[in-house]
Amino acid sequence: MRVVEKIAEIKSIVRSQKRTEKTIGFVPTMGYLHEGHMSLVETSLRHNDYTIMSIFVNPTQFGPNEDFERYPRDLDGDLKKAELAGVDIVFIPTKEEIYPKGYKTYVNVEGITNLLCGKSRPDHFRGVTTIVNKLFNIVEPDKAYFGQKDAQQVAVIRKMTSDLNLNVEIVTCPTIREDDGLAMSSRNAYLSEKDRLSATILSKSLFEAKELINKGERNREKIIDFIIQRINTEKDAIIDYVDAVDGDSLEQIDFLKGNVLLALAVKFGQTRLIDNMIIACE
Amino acid sequence: MRVVEKIAEIKSIVRSQKRTEKTIGFVPTMGYLHEGHMSLVETSLRHNDYTIMSIFVNPTQFGPNEDFERYPRDLDGDLKKAELAGVDIVFIPTKEEIYPKGYKTYVNVEGITNLLCGKSRPDHFRGVTTIVNKLFNIVEPDKAYFGQKDAQQVAVIRKMTSDLNLNVEIVTCPTIREDDGLAMSSRNAYLSEKDRLSATILSKSLFEAKELINKGERNREKIIDFIIQRINTEKDAIIDYVDAVDGDSLEQIDFLKGNVLLALAVKFGQTRLIDNMIIACE
Repeated sequence: MRVVEKIAEIKSIVRSQKRTEKTIGFVPTMGYLHEGHMSLVETSLRHNDYTIMSIFVNPTQFGPNEDFERYPRDLDGDLKKAELAGVDIVFIPTKEEIYPKGYKTYVNVEGITNLLCGKSRPDHFRGVTTIVNKLFNIVEPDKAYFGQKDAQQVAVIRKMTSDLNLNVEIVTCPTIREDDGLAMSSRNAYLSEKDRLSATILSKSLFEAKELINKGERNREKIIDFIIQRINTEKDAIIDYVDAVDGDSLEQIDFLKGNVLLALAVKFGQTRLIDNMIIACE
Repeated sequence: MRVVEKIAEIKSIVRSQKRTEKTIGFVPTMGYLHEGHMSLVETSLRHNDYTIMSIFVNPTQFGPNEDFERYPRDLDGDLKKAELAGVDIVFIPTKEEIYPKGYKTYVNVEGITNLLCGKSRPDHFRGVTTIVNKLFNIVEPDKAYFGQKDAQQVAVIRKMTSDLNLNVEIVTCPTIREDDGLAMSSRNAYLSEKDRLSATILSKSLFEAKELINKGERNREKIIDFIIQRINTEKDAIIDYVDAVDGDSLEQIDFLKGNVLLALAVKFGQTRLIDNMIIACE
């Protein structure tokens, strides 16, 4: 496995791979790798001749009062996991390599970035689309892999990719969960033992809501209220949002129909967790 | 020469050219081709195995009260000129092909888009960088050719290309002028016979200012005032701006040093013309 820090170096590797017509799979991450990330890697290895992972805690997707500084980092551990999994290249640029002095260009998807997580994280998705666009230009992947856990992120990246005519296929992989249902996330490391237990209410409430929908409930308000009430049984849970939107466009819906995305964000102390579920409603 | 309307078709042609390791030169235009455009084509033909031109009057770079509807168009004439010159492919997408229903993604360079032309055309450069980014993703050129006449446009596109790590080399070609000095522009077609004569004051004032600088003048205000006074000798000329900025960064300068860009925009009736000159000052 090669570990590369410089854009020029990875571009030259990519170009020589392309010349041999090898397909490139790409897994962009912020590191502190868990089984969710590794499932993206496994899928990329199956699909492609060559798999590149990036590890970069991207400052432009954090708000001024968010957790950029304390975001968990473990580069040595990450590199061991990547090597063991069979990643070909890990790209670990510095902040200065990605955003040199005088950096000024941003890619923004309008509309669907203002709802759900975008409401409380106003510039978050602009940071995500900018870094992903840059990484796509650097790595020139045939396919790129993202986790369904960040449902809105995937929708925004798909929209950018299609709107800007990028030559990358976006592949969404299922959310990987702990045995008790909690969606895997690097931010779970922040949770106290007590909050870690309480946090299982997020996936529980979504699975229970799914059961209600499968039994025939189609009233959007009722489903949202049900989830809110279930979460509020944990007194330390502070709800940021609970919503049900169209699973493809993320547009508001009046009642549940087609692919519905149930999505939520909840804070336990300083730790903001998200989870979601896509449910096919006839 | 092939004329292509669909993105999918041009992408498939580009991919098969790339497989044979041919280099691709790209000349994006809004059509109504003049010798300025054709000089870009000639340079691309010399540099590359394969030359693609696009003709697309891009709606997102026109303001609500600007000349999108009446912008001059002559597709038949343009195709004849392109074929005669030796262009391999002309890409002529529809508005709907480039901006399908629900289009939402924009590329924006901050800072240098707010000065010079950006002051009176607030979303202009956002439209330019968005369409050029899209066309680069569609055509995947090795080199792309732009005229020095649109000096700020070139600086903004260079900045986007470098910031977003695009795999394209931007080549700037000299401004082509009419015999009396007027910079060639599709918008010159708007001018009345009288305004066409008055408009020569633009290049005259720039050439005279260059002479003053070459004789030793380094006072920015004096040079700007000189140009303004010269332009005002034509009573139908309405100055939008006259400025002197750093030729590379477009940053404000206190006195003339290094590569200096003298740039101006002037209206004759409804017709807004621009011109500029880069002058090396020791």
